[in-house]
Amino acid sequence: MNREQLIRTIKEKKSFLCVGLDTDIEKIPTHLLDQEDPVFAFNQAIIDATADLCVAYKPNTAFYESRGVAGWESLRKTWAYLPKDCLSIADAKRGDIGNTSDMYAKAFFDEEASGMGFDALTVAPYMGNDSVSPFLAYAGKWTIVLALTSNQGGLDFQLNLDSRSGLQLYQQVISKVNGWGSTDNTMYVVGATRGELFREIRRFAADHFLLVPGVGAQGGSLEEVCRYGIIPDIGLLVNATRSIIYASSGADFAEKARAEALALQQDMERILIENGII
Amino acid sequence: MNREQLIRTIKEKKSFLCVGLDTDIEKIPTHLLDQEDPVFAFNQAIIDATADLCVAYKPNTAFYESRGVAGWESLRKTWAYLPKDCLSIADAKRGDIGNTSDMYAKAFFDEEASGMGFDALTVAPYMGNDSVSPFLAYAGKWTIVLALTSNQGGLDFQLNLDSRSGLQLYQQVISKVNGWGSTDNTMYVVGATRGELFREIRRFAADHFLLVPGVGAQGGSLEEVCRYGIIPDIGLLVNATRSIIYASSGADFAEKARAEALALQQDMERILIENGII
Repeated sequence: MNREQLIRTIKEKKSFLCVGLDTDIEKIPTHLLDQEDPVFAFNQAIIDATADLCVAYKPNTAFYESRGVAGWESLRKTWAYLPKDCLSIADAKRGDIGNTSDMYAKAFFDEEASGMGFDALTVAPYMGNDSVSPFLAYAGKWTIVLALTSNQGGLDFQLNLDSRSGLQLYQQVISKVNGWGSTDNTMYVVGATRGELFREIRRFAADHFLLVPGVGAQGGSLEEVCRYGIIPDIGLLVNATRSIIYASSGADFAEKARAEALALQQDMERILIENGII
Repeated sequence: MNREQLIRTIKEKKSFLCVGLDTDIEKIPTHLLDQEDPVFAFNQAIIDATADLCVAYKPNTAFYESRGVAGWESLRKTWAYLPKDCLSIADAKRGDIGNTSDMYAKAFFDEEASGMGFDALTVAPYMGNDSVSPFLAYAGKWTIVLALTSNQGGLDFQLNLDSRSGLQLYQQVISKVNGWGSTDNTMYVVGATRGELFREIRRFAADHFLLVPGVGAQGGSLEEVCRYGIIPDIGLLVNATRSIIYASSGADFAEKARAEALALQQDMERILIENGII
């Protein structure tokens, strides 16, 4: 899904919601545990209940890897089940030296090699250019680079002020990566818990799409993110995970997930209208 | 394997060699391709040929993930085959918000959950404390944090000079992580291609073990690394990958891999003697 298609999909669905599929087998409703693949069964039900309300799904690989080979198989089946009108994001936060990042790109972008062909992958920038570029080399795919993350530890290094460039680390990451990719193949991760910094972010990434986790369980505010983050091309994919997928631990989990996703979609529709986008 | 056991093993084997198992199905000898699991068959042969010459093995997860579910199964079998007198390191460079890093810790440390129980895992520091701490919480396991990496892109951000602390980013990473873990459960990744910086590294990590990739194909010098990096407790695990495992693409690949590993082990034995360690 390219940038133009993504923008069109957001306008059609009146939503820029991304649903996180961080599916923990210890948190899903117990009645699913007698299914052959309970994690996949849970994801199927969540996807069926929310597909018309969101424009992206984002499974975090950690939750699948924690179950080893079986989990990796659940991830593959989940990828295959994702609707084609939604951006599929592997939240894997990978990054390694060049020839190794090539392999990670195969793992998530190259269906023939790995059985999975996600549209997008999150990437960690610590190792610099040759750790990021192999992902950018894949035509038609998105590389989503960590910039300012939503967690408390995000403050440990990301706000460092580099004395040569005069930039904070996350600003320098955005500035450099801007030169490696384009607004057609690069996004940045910016946590919703950093609402006050979105104006600053837009100085460095005026036209990029931002993937924004941290709304919901992590406490970020959709209003504050949009106040400074929204642009005429929208430029935001706002992710919610736990507040949606664990809205209920009972038999009604999918229904309750839909209600949570619907509330967010309605807020987003209002914001899109208020900003003259739809 | 705890620190004391690691030091004892190094002295007994007269080696601080780590063999990287970055096994690319496109690079292994073609006669292995009719095996049921060619990657595992290759790894078995490499391990059998080198186990007495090294003290650690380090499969890089990217090479396994690139083959999807089948690759993940090859990784699990490789882990299970690793000799108990060698440190098993999953080179995965993971890191995410706290509850997600918990899942990565399960994936690599918790055999019951994932089928794999590595001794050590490489971790990326960009997301700070809560992304690293869940790994440190596992008793008896090692967290190996990226500090100064061997690749060209390592210079993009890791040498940034933070104006508040007066430290470069990699120095600040080491300083902070020193406060989160101890020399008994934390190591740092420092590339062999940064030989001239090992004296500087030892100012910040005087007693830590360092995992040193970049000798061999990447051009780092064992002599230079040891000149400034070695300490009375050795404090070095020097990794070689491509120069060993791809020493030959013929039927003699394991024999040639052994010869390369032996040459490195002999250099290491001489260095250990010269430094009065054995």
